[in-house]
Amino acid sequence: MTYCIGLYMADGLVMLADTRTNAGVDNISTFRKLSVWEQPGERVIALMTAGNLAISQTVVNLLNEGIEFCERGEQEDCSLQTLLTVPSMFQAAQLVGRAVREVHKVDAEALEAQSATFDVSFILAGQIKGRRMRMFQIYSAGNFIEATEDTPFFQIGENKYGKPILDRAFNHGTDLATAVKLSLLSMDSTLRSNMSVGMPLDLMVYGKDSLTVEIQKRIDPDDRYFANISQLWAQALRDSQAALPKPPWLEGTIC
Amino acid sequence: MTYCIGLYMADGLVMLADTRTNAGVDNISTFRKLSVWEQPGERVIALMTAGNLAISQTVVNLLNEGIEFCERGEQEDCSLQTLLTVPSMFQAAQLVGRAVREVHKVDAEALEAQSATFDVSFILAGQIKGRRMRMFQIYSAGNFIEATEDTPFFQIGENKYGKPILDRAFNHGTDLATAVKLSLLSMDSTLRSNMSVGMPLDLMVYGKDSLTVEIQKRIDPDDRYFANISQLWAQALRDSQAALPKPPWLEGTIC
Repeated sequence: MTYCIGLYMADGLVMLADTRTNAGVDNISTFRKLSVWEQPGERVIALMTAGNLAISQTVVNLLNEGIEFCERGEQEDCSLQTLLTVPSMFQAAQLVGRAVREVHKVDAEALEAQSATFDVSFILAGQIKGRRMRMFQIYSAGNFIEATEDTPFFQIGENKYGKPILDRAFNHGTDLATAVKLSLLSMDSTLRSNMSVGMPLDLMVYGKDSLTVEIQKRIDPDDRYFANISQLWAQALRDSQAALPKPPWLEGTIC
Repeated sequence: MTYCIGLYMADGLVMLADTRTNAGVDNISTFRKLSVWEQPGERVIALMTAGNLAISQTVVNLLNEGIEFCERGEQEDCSLQTLLTVPSMFQAAQLVGRAVREVHKVDAEALEAQSATFDVSFILAGQIKGRRMRMFQIYSAGNFIEATEDTPFFQIGENKYGKPILDRAFNHGTDLATAVKLSLLSMDSTLRSNMSVGMPLDLMVYGKDSLTVEIQKRIDPDDRYFANISQLWAQALRDSQAALPKPPWLEGTIC
């Protein structure tokens, strides 16, 4: 399994991914699921992947080697595009979708013959000079949706354990430092409940219009800050619920 | 969908179930999923159900009408048993399993012809005079596992959103009033994130060795206590995360 969170705010982006992959509980490995393409001052694009690792690695390879991309026009104008050359984030999302479909064409039938599903998903986010910052979730069919102020975060992989904290405490106006904290708390709940999601973590923080990566960091299992907030958060949850009133209709019974 | 929580403590039991059923998002109904059999001073047995409603209702009907149950012995001794007649909680769990298999015999083939799976699960808990209090989770194959001090809670249906709070704050030594509160907080997270889980809720509280139901209560959407802790909890989560330190490695960057 996998857990990746993409947070889309007025101030910027936070992308956080775990690194655990598994082929059964008896076969666990560590792979980077967050890739970043940066040309300082010109573009920052980050991609997180979930699902079948062979598919997602091939997609990333295609995005680096280039994919034939044809622009609509009077006469078809085709060229080899990568995430470092596409002119807009919309076309970056299209390019990822195109790469997924290329892999589907080559691999889907053989996967099906092994009763394996063509299972892959992505969160793509970034900004290109002169254009607005955007975030997309891309499906295994190569189609995609975009994050908005109403729905300012995407999750791929094991999304449920870590969703309540985001539902309650995150919105499009959240500042970047708080967003980093919330993404780590959301990851912490997931790590705790699903052992197929695992450390270390890969984090990228991008400040809107900066066109450079603010932070790109691997958070190791012995990271003191993460261990600290994980423990403080567990304690805060216990203290918070202890401070809540008891049900009044229990009075005179078990209380 | 459904969400039911069974909490098994040194002091007693808490059983909490939602009441929403749906056949697609455009067809939502309210059905009781918590059934209680009580003979004060002699036994209290509670059953919560998830999965296909036609299956779970039929199982409950069979449990009320009686199922042929044969005791092993020199010569087979068969009799019609209900949850009000079985001599032990272990046999109560076997009886539910037997009922599930009866329904499977009758319905599974027809369900399969409609591409519907035979999907049902149960949490059964209670105590019979002279015996210990026990809790079981029963699967669609009619087999079952028992809660222990190490794993003192079971969830059926939509289990993920509400698990982190239980993982962190609940254990076998938790007192009953706190357990009621925790079950409601766990339900609150689930209600918020999955609209196929819905109010009203059905709650049963049982104090060990009392052999009477302590509390059996329907919690309606306008229940003031539930609305109150739901709001206080959301606020507490926001306040708790705000009180956590910010990542030190963000200093000098976005902070």
